[in-house]
Amino acid sequence: MGIEKKGSSKISKIRADKVLLAHGSGSKASHEFVANLFLPSFSNPALEQLNDGAVFEISPQIRSFAFTTDSYVIDPIFFPGGDIGRLAVCGTVNDLAMNGATPLYLSAGFIIEEGFEIEILRQVVASMRQAAEEAEVKIVTGDTKVVNRGQLDKLFINTSGIGFLREDIDISGRNAKVGDKVIVSGSIGEHGIAVISKREGLEFDAPITSDCAPLNSLVADMLSATTDIHCLRDPTRGGLATTLNELAAQSNVGILIEETKIPINEPVKGACELLGYDALYVANEGKLVAVVPEKDAPQVLTKMRENRYGRDATIIGEVIPEPKRVLLKTAIGGTRILDMLTGELLPRIC
Amino acid sequence: MGIEKKGSSKISKIRADKVLLAHGSGSKASHEFVANLFLPSFSNPALEQLNDGAVFEISPQIRSFAFTTDSYVIDPIFFPGGDIGRLAVCGTVNDLAMNGATPLYLSAGFIIEEGFEIEILRQVVASMRQAAEEAEVKIVTGDTKVVNRGQLDKLFINTSGIGFLREDIDISGRNAKVGDKVIVSGSIGEHGIAVISKREGLEFDAPITSDCAPLNSLVADMLSATTDIHCLRDPTRGGLATTLNELAAQSNVGILIEETKIPINEPVKGACELLGYDALYVANEGKLVAVVPEKDAPQVLTKMRENRYGRDATIIGEVIPEPKRVLLKTAIGGTRILDMLTGELLPRIC
Repeated sequence: MGIEKKGSSKISKIRADKVLLAHGSGSKASHEFVANLFLPSFSNPALEQLNDGAVFEISPQIRSFAFTTDSYVIDPIFFPGGDIGRLAVCGTVNDLAMNGATPLYLSAGFIIEEGFEIEILRQVVASMRQAAEEAEVKIVTGDTKVVNRGQLDKLFINTSGIGFLREDIDISGRNAKVGDKVIVSGSIGEHGIAVISKREGLEFDAPITSDCAPLNSLVADMLSATTDIHCLRDPTRGGLATTLNELAAQSNVGILIEETKIPINEPVKGACELLGYDALYVANEGKLVAVVPEKDAPQVLTKMRENRYGRDATIIGEVIPEPKRVLLKTAIGGTRILDMLTGELLPRIC
Repeated sequence: MGIEKKGSSKISKIRADKVLLAHGSGSKASHEFVANLFLPSFSNPALEQLNDGAVFEISPQIRSFAFTTDSYVIDPIFFPGGDIGRLAVCGTVNDLAMNGATPLYLSAGFIIEEGFEIEILRQVVASMRQAAEEAEVKIVTGDTKVVNRGQLDKLFINTSGIGFLREDIDISGRNAKVGDKVIVSGSIGEHGIAVISKREGLEFDAPITSDCAPLNSLVADMLSATTDIHCLRDPTRGGLATTLNELAAQSNVGILIEETKIPINEPVKGACELLGYDALYVANEGKLVAVVPEKDAPQVLTKMRENRYGRDATIIGEVIPEPKRVLLKTAIGGTRILDMLTGELLPRIC
């Protein structure tokens, strides 16, 4: 067919540095694109089979699984402390870890705007590989679609993940009990502020970098202190305040936290003041909130502080019977209701 | 925060018929959006837990799994014979089925352009539900992102899928053996032509509808005839010719098919002639190619023809030792090499 010949010469000679529609067409060009770009980075036996999906075996001890999905549309693609590739791996690893699951396998679905620089895509893929290695997960299956210029802003990535669950743990947003302690793993608001600063070209005295990180090793360390962790959640979109509201609602309890105990770095505080944001609503990508029985809290904290991603872990409050809301005891001694985020703070933050 | 108040009133009063940025923000608005739109349609215990992922148990007999992902960017969203929702379920179900896996669970990741009509989204979701019911799979976890107007063309959906594999089958693109018969499950080219007709506003004498369908019941019927099926693949992007080339390359064999035996409906033939397409390269979404041992081919065909999606199944050729290419014996008696699609035939066809 004439169409083929034209496509072929265009691909191999004229613009090999840009992503073309043909790279997502199921054609020879897209096969070569996948073979050159993705396979060397994500090399593993399951992926190399090149069937329309990965096949893997599970040991007989494993009965329960967690399955999760997230699309990443962050703008800009590169930001201080990470990029869309690292985020796409860490975000889904963290969703699995927050179920108490040990992440095993990820899928990667790329939707790319025609004309996107292949060299930038290569950097994103390298970053995904590095994050996957750090998190000890394998990217075993993928998909690439290319859409016409102007029909998508640069690059979106979906990752879905599968993890296995131990039989002896039961972590759920429904499990918070009155008297439990609420722990946050470190300082909040860094991801959101880092991204918005980069997007808007803002410069602060002290640089603010995203906390984007895989938290599965932190969760594993926590579970080595006690298997009796009630809730785990990563306060991403909507921030800490929204996550606490989710947990309170799902468990039908109240949560009382103390403003002075919430770790917020000075540069983030300053940026929030300048921009008019409340750090409690700003997205994090490398933090978790844990609800644990009071008696286990000290050991859990000790273990967390030994992990690089939990060094600043601290107890910020506790679960209360009434009112079934999230309450903030402010620095000046009053108490106010901390509601869930109701509008949109920062679009395309993850 | 002022931002919250503003967002809140905007959502509940002014434009409740459009998707807003806030619907993908992790805020109260997005929680309500998910609760109202997705939960009623995809209702199942795993989804209703509302943690950041689904948890499910697997019976002790199951050891092997298939895992696959696909993003759907089809334009237009509604086309004769289907829509992006049906396609997103069927496409991923089919990728699992082509591994010989029994599809179990799907994830659904929506990326939506700000301002998209909620009523249309509701139709897409209803269509996903219907397709999932037909395919007997459960949508157990999901994600919604909303991007600013103009940063995405309407709606993209990613679905990832998990299926289980029986121990007694081994289906792979690598397994074609010399002497095997090549079967196609029905007439080709319908999906691609249906979509392009709708997109370009073309009208033909006879209406052409997409073949978009879940093929897992067809595969199950085939496996009831014999467990010794060598290859299965659905000829989507790149069409039948590209799929045959993939199988020949992966198995390191040649494939000889006969033009007169390839089922193509008259309306598709006419449309291809008019548009200058070769139906062998046009996408299908409800067809499969099977490579089976010669001795098993008759029983497999019989079983296929009893299934609504295999009524017109037929043998179109066989696996040969040399040359290691796909050869087409033409209607007029010659033989030509049928190459893989090299350029881009139809962008955003799935």
